[in-house]
Parts: sequence; structure tokens; C-alpha cells
Amino acid sequence: MKVITTKSELRSSLQSSRTDRKRIGFVPTMGYLHEGHISLVKQAKLECDIVVMSIFVNPLQFGPNEDLNRYPRDFERDCELAKKAGVDYLFHPDVSEMYPSQSLTYVRVGQITEKLCGASRPGHFDGVATVVTKLFQIVQPDRAYFGLKDAQQVAVIEQMVLDLDIPVTIVPCEIVRESDGLALSSRNVFLTPEQHQQALILSKSLQMAKDKLASHLFESTDQVSQFVIQQIQTQSLAEIDYVDTLQYPSLESPNSLTDDLLIAVAVRFGSTRLIDNVLVRHNNKEC
Amino acid sequence: MKVITTKSELRSSLQSSRTDRKRIGFVPTMGYLHEGHISLVKQAKLECDIVVMSIFVNPLQFGPNEDLNRYPRDFERDCELAKKAGVDYLFHPDVSEMYPSQSLTYVRVGQITEKLCGASRPGHFDGVATVVTKLFQIVQPDRAYFGLKDAQQVAVIEQMVLDLDIPVTIVPCEIVRESDGLALSSRNVFLTPEQHQQALILSKSLQMAKDKLASHLFESTDQVSQFVIQQIQTQSLAEIDYVDTLQYPSLESPNSLTDDLLIAVAVRFGSTRLIDNVLVRHNNKEC
Repeated sequence: MKVITTKSELRSSLQSSRTDRKRIGFVPTMGYLHEGHISLVKQAKLECDIVVMSIFVNPLQFGPNEDLNRYPRDFERDCELAKKAGVDYLFHPDVSEMYPSQSLTYVRVGQITEKLCGASRPGHFDGVATVVTKLFQIVQPDRAYFGLKDAQQVAVIEQMVLDLDIPVTIVPCEIVRESDGLALSSRNVFLTPEQHQQALILSKSLQMAKDKLASHLFESTDQVSQFVIQQIQTQSLAEIDYVDTLQYPSLESPNSLTDDLLIAVAVRFGSTRLIDNVLVRHNNKEC
Repeated sequence: MKVITTKSELRSSLQSSRTDRKRIGFVPTMGYLHEGHISLVKQAKLECDIVVMSIFVNPLQFGPNEDLNRYPRDFERDCELAKKAGVDYLFHPDVSEMYPSQSLTYVRVGQITEKLCGASRPGHFDGVATVVTKLFQIVQPDRAYFGLKDAQQVAVIEQMVLDLDIPVTIVPCEIVRESDGLALSSRNVFLTPEQHQQALILSKSLQMAKDKLASHLFESTDQVSQFVIQQIQTQSLAEIDYVDTLQYPSLESPNSLTDDLLIAVAVRFGSTRLIDNVLVRHNNKEC
């Protein structure tokens, strides 16, 4: 595995692979890797000849009062995990390499970014769309891998790639969970044992809602969200940011319980904000 | 010359050139070609192995009260001119090919877009930046050629390419003028002989201002603009949209007469809006 810190070196390293028409798979991350990230690398290795992972904590997608400085980092450990997973190129630019001058350009995706995390975190998805566009221009991958824990991010990136004609195939990958059900997240490291225990309500309530939906026990999508809220409120340390049930991937308000639905939650435990979701597909495959 | 109307066909046509590492030059246009466009093709042919021209009147960059429907079109004539100039691929998509679904994504460049045509035509440069990003993703050129008649557009595209790390070199090309000095524009066809005659004041006043600048006859950049305004106002049919003297390419207010300066004008003659400019470089080369 080659660690690369500059855009120009990454481009020239990938040039020969591109000329040889090797398929380049790309896994963009903010580091502090866990099995969720590794599952993306595994999928990329199945489908591509070369796997590029980026590790870059992107300041542009953090709000002024968010946890940019506190976001966990351990590059040495990440290197070992990436190497073991079979990453070929680990791109690890610093902020001045990614934003060398005063950047004036934003990529903005409308509508889809207005709900859920987009409503809670103004500007967040402008930062995501902009940095992902930049990374796509630098790496020029054939396929790029994103975890569905950030289901809204996947929807935003897919819309952006479609709208801007970026020549990359987006591959959404299943959420990876701990054995107790907690969705893997770099931020889980901040949870106390008690917070971790109470946070299990997220996956549990979402799975219960999905099961009840399958058994036709809801009369409206509002009831779905209300059910999840009530479940989460049984946990004393949980502070709900949002719980919502929306069409996926448009994130429009659902017309009926038989739409493809995303049930998504964001909940704080102390100063740690967790997100989780389930997808309930009626029109394509069941996730 | 091959005429291509779909993104997928253009991509597959260019695939083998790319694998052979041929340099691809790209000339994006809105058609109704004139010698200005042809000069871009000539420059591209000097520097590249393959030349792609696009002809697409982009609705996204026209405001609701602007001349989208009236914009001149003559595809048959354009084909002949492009072929004669040596274009290899002429990309001529229709609107539904470029915007097949409801597009939600914009590329927005800040600051530089707030002055001159950006102030007169709200949203114009969002439309330009977005369609040029799309075309760059479709063609993936090594070099792209833009005329300096749209000097602000060149500055916006250069900033965007830098900020988004788009792997293309922007080549700004000199304004081409009729023998009487009028800057070539597809819209010149709408001028009556009398309007055309009066419109010569644009190039004339800009050149006079440049000469006076070189002779140190101005005390401030405001005096430069005022001089050009007074000259233009001698013509009865001229309605000034703007005249401004700004730093180039930042388009910030100048600090002194020794900055690199753009003197830019937009003037209506009847219902036809013309733009023109001169660049006065002190810090690099003289244009």
C-alpha cells in the first residue's frame, strides 16, 4: 500500500492504471476506520482492479459549533487497517492540500438536502457535495463506495453524480453493526458504557418499526415515526434530534406506506450525535 | 467530422483516444459560429490531437426575461464551419439529453460572479458553471478553449476548475474583431446597420482608455470608467448596462492603476445587448 499526500502524486500514480484500463474503486472516508469502512474496501476489491481510499476530515462539512476538532483521528492505526484490507493507495491530504487558496466554489444539491441531517446541519451537504466532487476529480474512479448508514448522503451523491454527469458508478453498501445492533460509527468511541447500552434503542426501534410495517400494523407513515420516537424516549439519556419517515431516495414526504421508505433517526447521547436508519423497499428489492 | 447527439456515444467515441493518451481539446459553444469560435478551434488544433466542439444553447444560463428563444441558431451552417475548421467531434445534444430529469444540482462560484454580467444577469453564472462542469465530465478534455470576450466567464471557469480540482487546463484566447473593431458575437446579426455603426464606440472607447492608461493620463480607475461612459454616451442608440474597471481575474475593486485591470462594458442597442472589454496587464504580459 502506498500512502500519498498530494493530489499531483496521486494523479500520476493512477495514470498508468488508467491507461491500462484497470478499474479503479474509491472509498472516501474521514478515517478512524471501523468494519463499516472495511466492508466498503472488500466490496471494492470484488469489483475493481485498484482500490484507492481517502482519509480526510473535511472542515467544509462541519458547522461552526460542530465536532471538527474533536473528530477522532488515528492515522497510524488507519494505515494498518487499510493495508490489511488490501487498499492499494491511501490518499491522506492535509487541509491546505485540499483547499490551497480561498475556495469560492460550492456544489449544491437542492431538495434532498433540506430534510434530516440537512435540516439539522445547515451547509453540511454543500461541504459533502463539494469535497466529494473534488475527490472524484482527483481520483477519477470507475466506482465509488458509500455506506448506507449515511443514507441521505448516498441519495445526495447519487443525485449529484447524475445531475453533473460525473462518470462514476455509486455503490451503496449495507450498514455494518456491532453484534449488539449498534451501527458502526467513528463517533461510537465517545460513548460511555451506559450511553452505548441505551443507544441500542436506535437499531432496535428501527427494526421493530420495519417488522411492524411488514406486518401492516401502521396506518400512516406518521405512525411509524411516532412509534420510533416513543421507543427512543424510553431511554433517559437519549435526546432526539430528528426521527422521520420519508420516500427514498427523493426524501420527499411519502404518499403511502407502500412507497420505498427510509426511516431515519439522529439522537444525541451526551455530546455524541448518532444516526441510524432502515430502508424498506417495496418497489425494488428488500434491503 | 462526426456529429454526436448523446453523452454515451461521445464518451465511447473518445474512449480509444483517451486510452491512446491522445490530447483532447474542447471548444464549448452555443453555436451560430463566427471567426471567434473558429480561432478557438485553431488554437486547439495547434495544441491537441483531437478537437471536440459542443454546440448547446444552455437554458440554465438564460434568465426568464432573456433571449433564449431568440438566440440565433443555424446548425447546418455551423456543421460546415466546424468541419472546415478541423473539428473531429461535434457534440450537439438537445435539452432533454443534457437535462434528462429534474436537475437539483448547481455549481456556484462566489464573489467573481457578483460583478458585471453576474450583477446584470442573476443566476447566469450558476448556469454557466453548472453546464461547463457537466460538459467537462462528459468530454473529459485535457485543454478547454474560451474566448476572452467573456472575460468574466473565463475568470469564473478558471476559479471553478481550480476549486473543484477538475483535471483540465483552461486556455483563454484573444477577442476576435471585425475589421471595423466590433467584437465578434453571435448576437451581432441582430444589429441594424445604424446600430452596428454606433456600436463601434465600444471597441473604440475601450482602446482609447487603454492607450490613455498606458500614457498615465488617468488618476483613478473611476476616471477610466467615467471616460468610457462619456464616450459611449455620444452614441444616441446606446443604453449602458454597465461600465466598470476591476482587477482581473479576481474582479475585486482595484487598489491602483497598476493592478492588472479589466475594463468591461455591456451596452444595449435596441433589444440587443453587447459586451466588450480590454485587459490591461501590468504584472504579467500585455494583452
